[in-house]
Amino acid sequence: MIRSSDLLESLLKGDARSLARAITLVENRLPDGMALLQQLFPHSGRSKVIGITGSPGAGKSSLVDRLAAFYRRQNCKIGIVAVDPSSPFSGGAILGDRIRMNALATDPGVFIRSMATRGNLGGLATATADVVRVLDAAGRDPVLVETVGVGQDEIDIVKLADISIVVLVPGMGDDVQALKAGIMEIGDIFVINKCDRPGVEKMERAIQALLSLDHRTDGWVPPILKTVATEGRGIEELAEAIAKGYEFLQNSPLHRNKKREAAKERLLSILREELAQKTMNAVFPGDRLEQVIDEIVRREKEPHTVVDEIIRRVKIDA
Amino acid sequence: MIRSSDLLESLLKGDARSLARAITLVENRLPDGMALLQQLFPHSGRSKVIGITGSPGAGKSSLVDRLAAFYRRQNCKIGIVAVDPSSPFSGGAILGDRIRMNALATDPGVFIRSMATRGNLGGLATATADVVRVLDAAGRDPVLVETVGVGQDEIDIVKLADISIVVLVPGMGDDVQALKAGIMEIGDIFVINKCDRPGVEKMERAIQALLSLDHRTDGWVPPILKTVATEGRGIEELAEAIAKGYEFLQNSPLHRNKKREAAKERLLSILREELAQKTMNAVFPGDRLEQVIDEIVRREKEPHTVVDEIIRRVKIDA
Repeated sequence: MIRSSDLLESLLKGDARSLARAITLVENRLPDGMALLQQLFPHSGRSKVIGITGSPGAGKSSLVDRLAAFYRRQNCKIGIVAVDPSSPFSGGAILGDRIRMNALATDPGVFIRSMATRGNLGGLATATADVVRVLDAAGRDPVLVETVGVGQDEIDIVKLADISIVVLVPGMGDDVQALKAGIMEIGDIFVINKCDRPGVEKMERAIQALLSLDHRTDGWVPPILKTVATEGRGIEELAEAIAKGYEFLQNSPLHRNKKREAAKERLLSILREELAQKTMNAVFPGDRLEQVIDEIVRREKEPHTVVDEIIRRVKIDA
Repeated sequence: MIRSSDLLESLLKGDARSLARAITLVENRLPDGMALLQQLFPHSGRSKVIGITGSPGAGKSSLVDRLAAFYRRQNCKIGIVAVDPSSPFSGGAILGDRIRMNALATDPGVFIRSMATRGNLGGLATATADVVRVLDAAGRDPVLVETVGVGQDEIDIVKLADISIVVLVPGMGDDVQALKAGIMEIGDIFVINKCDRPGVEKMERAIQALLSLDHRTDGWVPPILKTVATEGRGIEELAEAIAKGYEFLQNSPLHRNKKREAAKERLLSILREELAQKTMNAVFPGDRLEQVIDEIVRREKEPHTVVDEIIRRVKIDA
């Protein structure tokens, strides 16, 4: 058992085992973890957080692995958080975690954490933000946050990044539906991966057309890069674009505002979660919740009415 | 201005204009809408709710349109709810709503509602459930709920359906990543759309392989159907499979349990939302929230600490 103050100290020194332990505490929302998060706060906010998102099957994992290898060659100690919000049932991707490049998996300079299940009380974005904070305080820089998918959860998650990369592939994306408004608006850099496949030009035109609809007021023009991640092609160019974009965006008022909004959403999401937990424990003692659900299923009670009754019992001190 | 009791009455008779008005009230969470929802409750639960989900670009809209046309030929008055959770910024799909088949758009027997933005306080699944309830009480049967995407939101939304169809296309899905655990577990029927494209057999094998991992205890074997929605091919077979599946699942304890879980999640999600609203108004008067966010951004305050302070002020009457 590591004492909490010792854990903080060794974590700030970058010790990998303390990092693993700290993340577990934080992920499981244990009291020690929450205390640690508060202690870490002043020591965080220094690392570059790079978000990578895109459609399933776009090759994000390979891209992240190659980027990680690139940063390792520059002697960075890095963190990778791989988030898969769409696996609520099995708690992970089918076939287990994808197989990471061997070199990365055994390199203590690369800390990889997969996050799959989202808690009953919501808040995968919050949990991801907390894990990123731990990695950040432990000196992991950059921290790569990879999300599988293109839904709201992924957008919330990517919002915590300093710079976001949207990964697309030729063929999939010539369908306009695949290029969602949300995903276009969060992309600071676009990558057409698997660019050895046919349809690259079409894809590029589609991205450009959608970007031209976007009224970005800070002057940043999201570059469109082409990679073949499995062969390592285009990775250096991508890393360059990331560095350039990061520098630009740090000074962009639009970007600062985006980060502020992300901080707000995160606060509200933690608040919602904690509120629900406290109230639930009080209003549904024992198996009362299950009884109420049975009544709803039998159509004896209407859910909004049930909620109204509970809400009336909640008082907030001035 | 329609009186609330008149609205209820004409809605229950199936009047299309009342339906539109009721849905607007409910969607905007207006007091009249919430009251209406409670009044509707005993009159709902009769329609078949069919969920349709799958990757972007799988052709769900065309499939839904063809299914709708099929049900119309059987003289059903139907409802369609098209949900796109991944468009939080623009409040809708790029290029506006997709163009529905002309015949459907002008047919009063087809009521189509698009839902795009999700409220700040979450709960797109709840809002969808509420809209479905209105359609259900108004005698729309079946109600087709279509979601764009494969994230957590979509899974939550599809859970409210009596039977769920997962739409895939050849080529996209030979990548195992595209077939997520969550999506496989909610699928009662699988459709390989655009089956005139190469890769159908491979896709079918991939689905079967994943289904064989799934330990479904109720004996239902999800069929895999092939369609070319744009040409109307395979639609009748799909409608038959839906009818057969619906009957089977109504008597499946596994399915009943799933519906119960969905009811539970819905109750908790409404509760979380209402709780947050009530508390937020009390603890952040005026621009207090914005001040707190500024303090967090300046790293003077830590978000979990802020939440702890608020939570301590919340009291629940016994």
